[in-house]
Amino acid sequence: MKRYCFAICLLLCSSILFGEDGYRLWLRYDKIDDPTLLKEYRTAISSISFQGSSPTLDVAKKELMNGLEGLLDKKIPEQKILVDGCVVVGTLSSPFFQEYYKNDDVSIGREGFTIHTAKYRGKNITLITGADGDAGVLYGVFQFLRLLQTHQSIAKISIISVPKIQNRILDHWDNLNRTVERGYAGASIWNWHLLPGYIDKRYVDYARANASIGINGTVLTNVSANALVLTRQYLEKVAELANVFRPYGIKVYLTARFTAPIEIGGLKTADPLDPAVQNWWKQKVDEIYTYVPDFGGFLVKANSEGQPGPQTYGRTHADGANMLADALAPHKGIVMWRAFVYDVRPQKVNENFDSHKVDSTAPNIAASDRAKQAYDEFKPLDGKFRKNVLVQVKNGPIDFQPREPFSPLFGGMEHTPLVMEFQITQEYLGQATNLVFEAPLFKECLDADTYAKGKGSTVARMIDGSVEKYPTTAIAGVSNIGNERNWTGHPFGQANWYAFGRIAWDHDLSAEQIADEWLRQTFSNDPHFVASTKKIMLMSRETLVSYMTPLGLHHIMGTGHHYGPAPWVSNAGRADWNPVYYHRADSLGIGFDRTSNGSNAISQYSPEVREQWDNLNTCNEKYILWFHHVPWKFKMHSGRTLWDELCYKYYSGVDSVRWIQKTWNDLKNYVDAERFDQVKMLLAVQEKEAVWWRNACLLYFQTFSKMPIPSKYEKPDHDLEYYEALKFPYAPGNGGL
Amino acid sequence: MKRYCFAICLLLCSSILFGEDGYRLWLRYDKIDDPTLLKEYRTAISSISFQGSSPTLDVAKKELMNGLEGLLDKKIPEQKILVDGCVVVGTLSSPFFQEYYKNDDVSIGREGFTIHTAKYRGKNITLITGADGDAGVLYGVFQFLRLLQTHQSIAKISIISVPKIQNRILDHWDNLNRTVERGYAGASIWNWHLLPGYIDKRYVDYARANASIGINGTVLTNVSANALVLTRQYLEKVAELANVFRPYGIKVYLTARFTAPIEIGGLKTADPLDPAVQNWWKQKVDEIYTYVPDFGGFLVKANSEGQPGPQTYGRTHADGANMLADALAPHKGIVMWRAFVYDVRPQKVNENFDSHKVDSTAPNIAASDRAKQAYDEFKPLDGKFRKNVLVQVKNGPIDFQPREPFSPLFGGMEHTPLVMEFQITQEYLGQATNLVFEAPLFKECLDADTYAKGKGSTVARMIDGSVEKYPTTAIAGVSNIGNERNWTGHPFGQANWYAFGRIAWDHDLSAEQIADEWLRQTFSNDPHFVASTKKIMLMSRETLVSYMTPLGLHHIMGTGHHYGPAPWVSNAGRADWNPVYYHRADSLGIGFDRTSNGSNAISQYSPEVREQWDNLNTCNEKYILWFHHVPWKFKMHSGRTLWDELCYKYYSGVDSVRWIQKTWNDLKNYVDAERFDQVKMLLAVQEKEAVWWRNACLLYFQTFSKMPIPSKYEKPDHDLEYYEALKFPYAPGNGGL
Repeated sequence: MKRYCFAICLLLCSSILFGEDGYRLWLRYDKIDDPTLLKEYRTAISSISFQGSSPTLDVAKKELMNGLEGLLDKKIPEQKILVDGCVVVGTLSSPFFQEYYKNDDVSIGREGFTIHTAKYRGKNITLITGADGDAGVLYGVFQFLRLLQTHQSIAKISIISVPKIQNRILDHWDNLNRTVERGYAGASIWNWHLLPGYIDKRYVDYARANASIGINGTVLTNVSANALVLTRQYLEKVAELANVFRPYGIKVYLTARFTAPIEIGGLKTADPLDPAVQNWWKQKVDEIYTYVPDFGGFLVKANSEGQPGPQTYGRTHADGANMLADALAPHKGIVMWRAFVYDVRPQKVNENFDSHKVDSTAPNIAASDRAKQAYDEFKPLDGKFRKNVLVQVKNGPIDFQPREPFSPLFGGMEHTPLVMEFQITQEYLGQATNLVFEAPLFKECLDADTYAKGKGSTVARMIDGSVEKYPTTAIAGVSNIGNERNWTGHPFGQANWYAFGRIAWDHDLSAEQIADEWLRQTFSNDPHFVASTKKIMLMSRETLVSYMTPLGLHHIMGTGHHYGPAPWVSNAGRADWNPVYYHRADSLGIGFDRTSNGSNAISQYSPEVREQWDNLNTCNEKYILWFHHVPWKFKMHSGRTLWDELCYKYYSGVDSVRWIQKTWNDLKNYVDAERFDQVKMLLAVQEKEAVWWRNACLLYFQTFSKMPIPSKYEKPDHDLEYYEALKFPYAPGNGGL
Repeated sequence: MKRYCFAICLLLCSSILFGEDGYRLWLRYDKIDDPTLLKEYRTAISSISFQGSSPTLDVAKKELMNGLEGLLDKKIPEQKILVDGCVVVGTLSSPFFQEYYKNDDVSIGREGFTIHTAKYRGKNITLITGADGDAGVLYGVFQFLRLLQTHQSIAKISIISVPKIQNRILDHWDNLNRTVERGYAGASIWNWHLLPGYIDKRYVDYARANASIGINGTVLTNVSANALVLTRQYLEKVAELANVFRPYGIKVYLTARFTAPIEIGGLKTADPLDPAVQNWWKQKVDEIYTYVPDFGGFLVKANSEGQPGPQTYGRTHADGANMLADALAPHKGIVMWRAFVYDVRPQKVNENFDSHKVDSTAPNIAASDRAKQAYDEFKPLDGKFRKNVLVQVKNGPIDFQPREPFSPLFGGMEHTPLVMEFQITQEYLGQATNLVFEAPLFKECLDADTYAKGKGSTVARMIDGSVEKYPTTAIAGVSNIGNERNWTGHPFGQANWYAFGRIAWDHDLSAEQIADEWLRQTFSNDPHFVASTKKIMLMSRETLVSYMTPLGLHHIMGTGHHYGPAPWVSNAGRADWNPVYYHRADSLGIGFDRTSNGSNAISQYSPEVREQWDNLNTCNEKYILWFHHVPWKFKMHSGRTLWDELCYKYYSGVDSVRWIQKTWNDLKNYVDAERFDQVKMLLAVQEKEAVWWRNACLLYFQTFSKMPIPSKYEKPDHDLEYYEALKFPYAPGNGGL
């Protein structure tokens, strides 16, 4: 009989291993594999008791029961009376918790939760509670399961957790035809054609995954917007998704096409000051709320990259945003108005600009520094927006590059709540193939000090409202989710979705903590595995910066698809679409002079920040080519010349990838075969791509520096012409998949 | 302890149910749930013994071991010496089988297999064998597992199985950007961007699934071809796929863009008689074989729907096909040249043609009957093709309609091997949402008698070469596979992939047999479940015909995306893209007169076939409007007028869908929750769509018949204008997903 049991256990294990396709994300509830711990948990958790019922409590109960059944390998019964080991779950307003807390002040706000162990009426119990109405209780349940998944002690728990930012949102750049702009994980998970009749199980699992990390909003559609999503045909579909997400505390938002009144409304104009237009939006918004009573609001990309906007009618961004805000205000909806606007001042490629022919930065281009435009455009509008308008700002002033300094708008908009926009999908971070953990990038930006209100005015504290007391706060991440079996394509892409949610909830969490808990939930609690893989994750972003855009270089990738290196491109349709516009390599040096001698973009920052970067000799070298045009023979802190430092960075980036490869390949026995092989294959591709970036960039920049790649390094295996000739017409994320 | 085991078993079951996402297709190896049978199987199968080793034997062994371990819920060991219950597997040339069969003649050809039980050297054993080199042994292993999966007795097995058709091929209409033309299951499973470095596990499971049903070829790319797949960059990717598929007996084919010599070869012409062009193709083919030594050959769509072809240069289809065939011949490759050509004679919409205004079929259109074109074009070329050219013909003369008579080319090409082209993907069969089992459609065509060489010259016997002794035989199915978790989107779409493979192997299998074994493998062996669901499957295609295109109607779907009804469309770019061209409804009647009084398409068939259909009064009513323009008050066999019969058909189709819905919903306890819900939701959508088809078509045709829908029927819930106004710009399969 024992043998029989053993055989079944084996089979169970093998079936679990067989099914490790990544679909479950970090919500894996396999049996605790540490027998001592399992015994401890089983003793501590004998039953559960849910106080009351609501759609959110019901999904919380289902999650807790499924989770415990899997982790503890036994069914945990519901219990009406209080017994030792009972996990009592409910909202603060339930009779049990009213009685329990009596007059205690439990400060958990609308969405926070507490978990703690206590001796109550003679019984050792665990309590999980949150406020009424919102998803706090559910968040608490997920946190409790996480404690078990990550093998924490649950003997004495005392957790109070309250999100620092109110609206924690995923932005999907998903089109109605199911392609995903900058998506690298297959088609959109929104199967618009089959909605509303067919509810894909993915929608529920998407909601579970988001709720487990505290994400409470989703913008379903691409910022490059399609008015059709606002028609009845699509609102019926949107309503079904909202119904699925509601119990999980997730609100639905849509992108508003500014010219929708013309395209689907039959009006002749979309002028935001035209009463007919205003009225059309009011009615449209009222209609949306009949489908989705808790609709979150609009995200708008206006007058940017070909999208129409108020400036089309000679109006300001504030005029446009306020019109929508007025329509949404009666329903408590918000407008997130993107500051990513760079087509407001028509530019022409300067046909005389050939970086091989000039020896200094062309001032006419410097004057039009794209890095300055969002600030120039929005700073004058500060204070002119309605209360329910937030301006959504990308973390850096250009466009989600591997490294950028923080956008000067953070700290620059005293009267306007700002939404931080991070890009989870790896448009510029190796796309489908590179292992890059983004938490260090998010943290680098959030922890940066704007000095807006003196030292300690970090970007995080601007966003969470603690500096400027914004009435509404929000953070957004551009989703990396698609319909591939494992959601994100690269198994480690899941970590970035996870990290975004966790940081949105609590920006004080460290990248190391997040990597640790994600690895334990997603792969294994084995200490050797966790330590090795965490090291990989934590070094991965800096590694990528080294082999792609070291020392402050930026925007030197392929045109259109943004795949691979193309620092040589100088013929794109606008000056600021060209890599040569950004690196400005010439016979004297390389880098974009944004000091007061150059574009003076640096003037947009506080004096304390300026001081960090303005002086070539003291500027942090990770930003040196962002702010300075640096001579090839400039002496770096390492003692190397700039050119040699550039070589060193590119080569060390490739070396690090190889180290990561080796480290992962040694972990074969710690990971299920399917995911081990996936990551192994992808790391091999990443190594090839890193070499490609290194060789292509150095060979190209060498045509300016005229200096040799130090002989100790391996020689590029192709010449520059080879790299320049590579074409990828079907690279994904740019129309294809 | 017993209780403990029971708990584990329960958990195991729940974990299996939890994971029933359809990814495993019919290759589910869960524990046999009949204890008596399980005991019987365990006794009969004690060990396995593989004779020799090869890539194919190795995957066969892995499959057999995994399959038996799952089904028998215990590891079946390998055994070197012969014991009772041993399953001995190997090729005929292995010493064991040489010795076993001695001088027996085992007629299984290159790909057949035998499975039989025997007493040999005093031991009761099971033997599985096939010829050397090809996948016969693997096919035998899958068949053996199927016996267990479908709960057959294995006490006395004596199976000899040889495929009737040599090349059994899936055609993927997959584009290099990962969209799939007429695909309704997400993106292409070929992730070209990540190849060759990243081998998706799907590729292996695709190969396993195909091998399990005997499919031995795959055309990776869309017939609307892209020359880039023939470049080195893509051939490296193709080679990796071929490497994955080779052990499974699957050859890779590509589609050849006729103008590739210009587009990627730098030539000025693609004229097939130009020596430079011929030479380019020879070199290109030689190059392909360096990447894929067993490359299968080309599939070509030329001079059709905008694709270039030999006629562009004033040459014939034979000239074009022969040029490619000459390049492929030294490597034993074949050309499959599609007969689906209908743009060879430029047509214009007759602007005066308004079916509401004319009272008889316009002869100028009748004369250009698209149904005649493939035959007219190819019949004169019979005998002019090289030996390694096959002409690929769609089952019917128009385009994969819910019902068509067989194409007259079957039986019409004495000297040219024909490939049967079926469409598995449901372009015209309800696309993503309708449950339609296609085996009855396939069988209806294959079993039709062409009378080419007297009675019994069925289409099947034309294709398999038994009538005309074709040296090469082939059958192709246009794939319905995408990257959705369950491969085909609709869970029952899997049955069509399965049915195509099984029929391609043995066209004598009945639709009923195929449904039976698919259901048992894919869902359950429960007799009530199998009986009920089989009934659903077997009636499903006739049901769809009734609510879409009864009585021989055809091609009345939406323009472009082909989604939903649009019999009113008369403004498409070519006459024969318009539904009104096909149904020809007018005040007198409805239907396309293809008799000698009309387009005379019927003359393309044998006299015996003609006789079946030529006379309005005796024509099989399922084809009546295909061949005749029938007066509204014509008396049908039922005694009803044509109009009333049309109403009856449309209404009974909807009724049948409702019956199917009810039947399925009653099976809740027999199916895992995930797939039960999927099918339930999809059937609800199908019911809505059936009602939409019925109402839209009858309301439209009523504008001609001026007769009432009998009052006993439920009234249409919208008017015709409502249906005509519906728009679906992002319906999948037509650029979107």
